[in-house]
Amino acid sequence: MSVRTIVWGENVHEQTNEVVAGIYPRGMHNCIADALNADPAITATTATLQEQDHGLTPERLAATDVLVWWGHAAHGDVKEEVVERVADAVWGGMGLIALHSAHFSKIFKRLMGAPCNLSWREAGERERLWLTSRNHPIAAGLPDHFELEYEEMYGEPFGVPEPMETVFVSWFQGGEVFRSGLTWRRGAGNIFYFRPGHEAYPTFHDPNVQLVLRNAVKWAHNPAPRIADPHAAPNRPTRDALEKISERGPSLHEKGQEGFR
Amino acid sequence: MSVRTIVWGENVHEQTNEVVAGIYPRGMHNCIADALNADPAITATTATLQEQDHGLTPERLAATDVLVWWGHAAHGDVKEEVVERVADAVWGGMGLIALHSAHFSKIFKRLMGAPCNLSWREAGERERLWLTSRNHPIAAGLPDHFELEYEEMYGEPFGVPEPMETVFVSWFQGGEVFRSGLTWRRGAGNIFYFRPGHEAYPTFHDPNVQLVLRNAVKWAHNPAPRIADPHAAPNRPTRDALEKISERGPSLHEKGQEGFR
Amino acid sequence: MSVRTIVWGENVHEQTNEVVAGIYPRGMHNCIADALNADPAITATTATLQEQDHGLTPERLAATDVLVWWGHAAHGDVKEEVVERVADAVWGGMGLIALHSAHFSKIFKRLMGAPCNLSWREAGERERLWLTSRNHPIAAGLPDHFELEYEEMYGEPFGVPEPMETVFVSWFQGGEVFRSGLTWRRGAGNIFYFRPGHEAYPTFHDPNVQLVLRNAVKWAHNPAPRIADPHAAPNRPTRDALEKISERGPSLHEKGQEGFR
Amino acid sequence: MSVRTIVWGENVHEQTNEVVAGIYPRGMHNCIADALNADPAITATTATLQEQDHGLTPERLAATDVLVWWGHAAHGDVKEEVVERVADAVWGGMGLIALHSAHFSKIFKRLMGAPCNLSWREAGERERLWLTSRNHPIAAGLPDHFELEYEEMYGEPFGVPEPMETVFVSWFQGGEVFRSGLTWRRGAGNIFYFRPGHEAYPTFHDPNVQLVLRNAVKWAHNPAPRIADPHAAPNRPTRDALEKISERGPSLHEKGQEGFR
Repeated sequence: MSVRTIVWGENVHEQTNEVVAGIYPRGMHNCIADALNADPAITATTATLQEQDHGLTPERLAATDVLVWWGHAAHGDVKEEVVERVADAVWGGMGLIALHSAHFSKIFKRLMGAPCNLSWREAGERERLWLTSRNHPIAAGLPDHFELEYEEMYGEPFGVPEPMETVFVSWFQGGEVFRSGLTWRRGAGNIFYFRPGHEAYPTFHDPNVQLVLRNAVKWAHNPAPRIADPHAAPNRPTRDALEKISERGPSLHEKGQEGFR
Repeated sequence: MSVRTIVWGENVHEQTNEVVAGIYPRGMHNCIADALNADPAITATTATLQEQDHGLTPERLAATDVLVWWGHAAHGDVKEEVVERVADAVWGGMGLIALHSAHFSKIFKRLMGAPCNLSWREAGERERLWLTSRNHPIAAGLPDHFELEYEEMYGEPFGVPEPMETVFVSWFQGGEVFRSGLTWRRGAGNIFYFRPGHEAYPTFHDPNVQLVLRNAVKWAHNPAPRIADPHAAPNRPTRDALEKISERGPSLHEKGQEGFR
Repeated sequence: MSVRTIVWGENVHEQTNEVVAGIYPRGMHNCIADALNADPAITATTATLQEQDHGLTPERLAATDVLVWWGHAAHGDVKEEVVERVADAVWGGMGLIALHSAHFSKIFKRLMGAPCNLSWREAGERERLWLTSRNHPIAAGLPDHFELEYEEMYGEPFGVPEPMETVFVSWFQGGEVFRSGLTWRRGAGNIFYFRPGHEAYPTFHDPNVQLVLRNAVKWAHNPAPRIADPHAAPNRPTRDALEKISERGPSLHEKGQEGFR
Repeated sequence: MSVRTIVWGENVHEQTNEVVAGIYPRGMHNCIADALNADPAITATTATLQEQDHGLTPERLAATDVLVWWGHAAHGDVKEEVVERVADAVWGGMGLIALHSAHFSKIFKRLMGAPCNLSWREAGERERLWLTSRNHPIAAGLPDHFELEYEEMYGEPFGVPEPMETVFVSWFQGGEVFRSGLTWRRGAGNIFYFRPGHEAYPTFHDPNVQLVLRNAVKWAHNPAPRIADPHAAPNRPTRDALEKISERGPSLHEKGQEGFR
């Protein structure tokens, strides 16, 4: 069965900026979804900020294996309720791929527990991505390095938790470096951050970038059934203890009471 | 100079429950602070939920190296504003030690980006903590294992991100296990979670527990100056690039503009 | 295409000890291989210490995706040359699953760069394995805990490097705990250590253990082409630099010279 | 008490190459030791390949907190026996700092369990090191980036295990990047790899490099008593079990027997 993927696009600059509209006439989200659908193992659809619930209803998330997120100008417009809903889905097993300026999206910051800040420059400079983990599934089929002739610069230090793995590090023409491909797990959900993708440049038309995205979607897919309640904190009563024990000492909780939150 | 430490106590059950008041007549926070102050390298004071700003004003946090947090019944009463203030301090370099039921505190969940859930049982059963990282600074002076005759059980799976290091794993009489000493870094702040400490038992009077707490405070202390703004995302203009480059291609941002958030 | 797997068995106690021969009449390696072959996605064969090259010729390793290793009494009899050959295969992308007493095998210690020591007791006591990473691929289809009524005890501290992920932690009847499922990556190779499997007990007949093994083989499989020379340290001559540079300053190496090793 | 440090230098090119001798007339090891001794918290001495036991007798290692290692042309001349002795000291708690071409030293490869390979070019190009972990103790007092005008290039992928932390990433003029400051723990020993230090350039005279080395020595110091036998795998007999158990089932080991290795 193919990996059910939603490409979430903010869809703001595509509507308001001629340059962006020229590069991505159907929106960045559709460009990315097309790139994903080129792989028969992936079935990608799209969702945007402007839709009801930003297109991310509980029903739809329940039927989604991987969510790809691109946002920039309108991070603040994303509803907290939807952020928590997405976080729950990730903890329950949905994969999440955060692209470029999504480093400052509410959902990425929520899952990192960190500021996710960096330095930046928009000068159309050359970026060269280097593999740091050869033969990592996310790098399948890629050479040891590839270039994007025009990109926005993001520079270290990048304010994220130490990753599970560093997959790519970027070199920038202006003298900076950046850990541009990083993995984490949160609950049962696999998370990948991928740096390139400034909307003023044709990055998502690049074949190597498209290959990374397809690889990443397949890597992020956790085929296990979604965890129904990723917050569950069940009491295991004494009578059901796996090894026979007797209650001793004083007690704070009454029988059958739920724990405090 | 000694490590300036605040022991934050919720201070609810000590006021409302006779058992807890009997074990900790001056509150758990004072018992813990006394244990820390036994080490001349530490200067510990206390703060409680009931104080203005929960005792955690910006000025006081700015002069604090390590914050120790114990809460249980009143997690929900901690103000969001204070949670964000503490998170900022941690990202800027303040250490944080979360004790026992603080796994569900707002500040710990905020920094983990995860549900932090577990299973539990209050039966006064025996817990035995095993070192998994011999000679770790947090385990200095401890034997390979030590026991707490009466404790609440916490069981795996524990819903936290993979730690930087696992320092202790607990065995429970009723048949469960728990990763009971875990470290992470978030920004410049060192974080340690330590499992024992149910308020119905005299855990914080235990000499081994007190030694762990003193070790942990010293381990968590980052002597570097606090980062003033842990969210800063500075633009590095083209004219100041470390390697000479020229702007090329289209541009989205106007000169001198701040980045989107 | 199915995952080409070799189950390597030391095959000593099966030949010399009646108890072991009774439990595993065709050897532990065949019992494990049968369990793996129950999954159509896996094709498992066996190799033993007694064969030429211990059954691990260069040609055979080149055609192997995952190697499962069980050894105990005869670690010292495994030839260094074969150990290095297997290590090269792992660095190049072959998966390795080390079982039980293989914690002291030459190949596991070689890849860990650590003593891999632990404490132990052979008393036929109860072991209960707890998931610490719910919905991890290696735990697919498993309950949150499962028991082995008779097992040898292994106790912490376990002298291995901090893992990429902790998947299982064991509880033992006699009071110890152990991190019994751990993952690492070395080069392009995925490594999993799984604790149970003392030869005096029928552990490899247990359905949950067999499920872990099938899951682990599929998890460890890296489908990328094997890296031909995992030690390659190529010179990138100045004339081929990706960014135009000129040689400056003094020079130690002559042109075209290989680096020192 | 100050951190007792040995700076180990191969001391070959200083004797045979005029350029190197000109930059480091008393050898690189003495230049590094002088830089360390500028900090009153450190007491650094030196040892070289040419001395008996390469200057690393058991007695001397037993009285050493941190070992700094630089080697290049003569990795192959280091005796296996000394490598194992140093590895034992690290597992027991001695810190190790591997510099530059020591990525291919026997001791570093031994502790990594990996090929530790990379690509390289000697062109006297500019290297710029960026912090990736702001306020890390190893980066204390450093700016976010610093430059070495003349250095040998090392390029990714770097064949080491995923580190505990990435502290520095380097930018190279010719277009490559490298994770140039990485930490690991092996047993009780802290390990830091630091990339710069080609012998044909005056890198170890650089104030920022010297500051990193001083910070790293203090970071790597584990003040706990050295573990006497880091390979110990003690039997815990049934009669001494922490929880009362009885022996059951068949048995492979005779009473009091040591485990197999």
